[in-house]
Amino acid sequence: MTAAQNSSAQGDLQDQKVAGYQSPLGVTQLQIATLPGIRTQSGFEFEKVDVSYQTLGKLTPARDNAILVCHGLSGTAHVAGTDAQTGRPGWWDYHVGPGKAIDTDKFFIIGTNALGGCNGTTGPSSTNPRTGRPYAMDFPPVTIHDMVAVQAKLLDSLGIKKLFAVVGASMGGMQALAWAVDFPERVRICIPIATCTAHNAMQIAFNEIGRRAIITDPNWNQGNYSETCRPAHGLAVARMVGHVTYLSELAMARKFGRRRQPETGHADQFSVESYLHHQGETFVKRFDPNSYLYLTRAIDEFNLFENASAEEVLRRIRSRFLVVSFSSDWLYPPVQSRELVRLLKRAGLAATYLNLEAEYGHDSFLIENLPFAGVLRNFLHGEYAPGPERRFAHLTPA
Amino acid sequence: MTAAQNSSAQGDLQDQKVAGYQSPLGVTQLQIATLPGIRTQSGFEFEKVDVSYQTLGKLTPARDNAILVCHGLSGTAHVAGTDAQTGRPGWWDYHVGPGKAIDTDKFFIIGTNALGGCNGTTGPSSTNPRTGRPYAMDFPPVTIHDMVAVQAKLLDSLGIKKLFAVVGASMGGMQALAWAVDFPERVRICIPIATCTAHNAMQIAFNEIGRRAIITDPNWNQGNYSETCRPAHGLAVARMVGHVTYLSELAMARKFGRRRQPETGHADQFSVESYLHHQGETFVKRFDPNSYLYLTRAIDEFNLFENASAEEVLRRIRSRFLVVSFSSDWLYPPVQSRELVRLLKRAGLAATYLNLEAEYGHDSFLIENLPFAGVLRNFLHGEYAPGPERRFAHLTPA
Repeated sequence: MTAAQNSSAQGDLQDQKVAGYQSPLGVTQLQIATLPGIRTQSGFEFEKVDVSYQTLGKLTPARDNAILVCHGLSGTAHVAGTDAQTGRPGWWDYHVGPGKAIDTDKFFIIGTNALGGCNGTTGPSSTNPRTGRPYAMDFPPVTIHDMVAVQAKLLDSLGIKKLFAVVGASMGGMQALAWAVDFPERVRICIPIATCTAHNAMQIAFNEIGRRAIITDPNWNQGNYSETCRPAHGLAVARMVGHVTYLSELAMARKFGRRRQPETGHADQFSVESYLHHQGETFVKRFDPNSYLYLTRAIDEFNLFENASAEEVLRRIRSRFLVVSFSSDWLYPPVQSRELVRLLKRAGLAATYLNLEAEYGHDSFLIENLPFAGVLRNFLHGEYAPGPERRFAHLTPA
Repeated sequence: MTAAQNSSAQGDLQDQKVAGYQSPLGVTQLQIATLPGIRTQSGFEFEKVDVSYQTLGKLTPARDNAILVCHGLSGTAHVAGTDAQTGRPGWWDYHVGPGKAIDTDKFFIIGTNALGGCNGTTGPSSTNPRTGRPYAMDFPPVTIHDMVAVQAKLLDSLGIKKLFAVVGASMGGMQALAWAVDFPERVRICIPIATCTAHNAMQIAFNEIGRRAIITDPNWNQGNYSETCRPAHGLAVARMVGHVTYLSELAMARKFGRRRQPETGHADQFSVESYLHHQGETFVKRFDPNSYLYLTRAIDEFNLFENASAEEVLRRIRSRFLVVSFSSDWLYPPVQSRELVRLLKRAGLAATYLNLEAEYGHDSFLIENLPFAGVLRNFLHGEYAPGPERRFAHLTPA
């Protein structure tokens, strides 16, 4: 294993092997549900929609302990446990499991792959029933609200009327916010992490660089690429851009500094270059370039207060909030979370806000992070089992 | 003119038309000098080197008023005045001219295109005398120190033994630092702006994304592209990455926000996307992709204290310093300039440091910026004409 693959005990479990890490959940399975379709915000009618999902833990007879976990741009329904085929843990295995922040001994956890994705849920690489070929760019534009509408259909099929909590970071945090607004009666607790209510120009700019790299790759071919001739270079560059924005300057300095990468035979390369190449190449194997275009577009278009004032939008909400940001996250800077919390409080909503000191940048939610885990765990436990100590439970140090 | 091309009265004069802006210098000329070659740090012997340069103002009989201006990654020898062919002002016209920060009425200013560049100075697109074809990737690796060695040859040919000052921002600031170390007897004042003594991992990462976009563009063809089939897409993506890093989040929010670009027929596009596309396309017309690879590599490899301790390296220096950084520059964050100043002062060198409040990010040195102009002007005037008030002259508000 090279330094590029594991230069830190902390890593994103999805693309990096973390030496010695074993999921306490053992092997877990994904399922596919074929659900009644939705009409997208853009007016496209899906007759039906496939949804890849995972459940962990047990639903109480009262069906009151369900937590929906929404993934970020590159995540999947595989939240936790070991994948039987790849042997890899789920992307949030650090924080979802027995006794963990999101405790599978206590809660019933649902992970789903987002609409427009490429890991089992209907997306641009799915077969277009009208043509028998992949939708490609005939896939309709999808929005964060469309993703949430599909998740609601999944909950219907699972017989869950109301979520105890919806939790998500980054794009998943946008989904959590959309849940609270679109289905106010179905969400008790909303936990948006390292996210915002609408991308600013810089956030859009970074996504657009990735999209541009993909669509100017000649193999993209207006989206009609084959399995053997994909715009892999463009997608790899897009992922490299993403990865730089997910890390803090300090984390990169500590992890790589100006060190070289002699063990890969590229003595001239800086370790950070090898790391980025590796991230790009790994991602290309598991992600669909068209999905990258659709999902980043959904993220950029998301604007919680697009059609009405914040006051009007937030008035509908019935959830209580835990909002988390990370001090070194410059992609979703804490100021965006603070602004959200200001609006929530002004709307009279219960909102606990924590800006956690964390060195790792945006990825701080993905990695082993005890203070973050403590905050999440205490809040969920405090809200689920209100006792005399409830009001202060979430302030107890981890 | 679209909002993307001129959404602000402040702009980079090199690639953006700024409405109504006229250079007070009128039309200026560039020259090419064919100079004795150098031996690069990597051991390559150039028999001779072409250098594109510009001079502005008049050299005093004492030859004591010469200021060398070193450009950043994408600059040229065309520092100020109007280009006869394009009608465009030089890249630093805001700050170089009669009565301006770098006063052409008082100083003799020399701009040169860097070794490895593509605007008249020998670089990868120049003809390799051994083959009669462009060097392409047979061009030797060049360093910031090699660039400076070539500039020294130019000064020899102009009969300038000692510079009053060397000034540069970004890559140009690295050259300024290299001048002070490599030719201590030839530099009286050194003004590194928005730069650092060595790139950190994040700075390398952003450059590597650009390089990767270029070399994975199939038209790159191992560097052997033709004029009609260049890796234009890759270079455009590289420039888009660069541009995002040159601007602050606040500047982008003010300039673009979430506005759309209906007037270009792309009502779906955010203005920031059109802006980036325009920047990419404009750059491709004037820049050589291989030069981009060589110059970014020179920047990443630069490490002022590579071969000796800071103490040993700085002991050689005879210059006095003005170091400038900008509060919103996240590509070359002020902390890097502060660290440089700390080392200079510890070495007993005279160093004035100003971290200027500026909203525009790294590009703050390129745009109209009165506080910056005042600092530069006062420092240069104070140092050039020391009188009784000299010690405090550079502290006078602009």
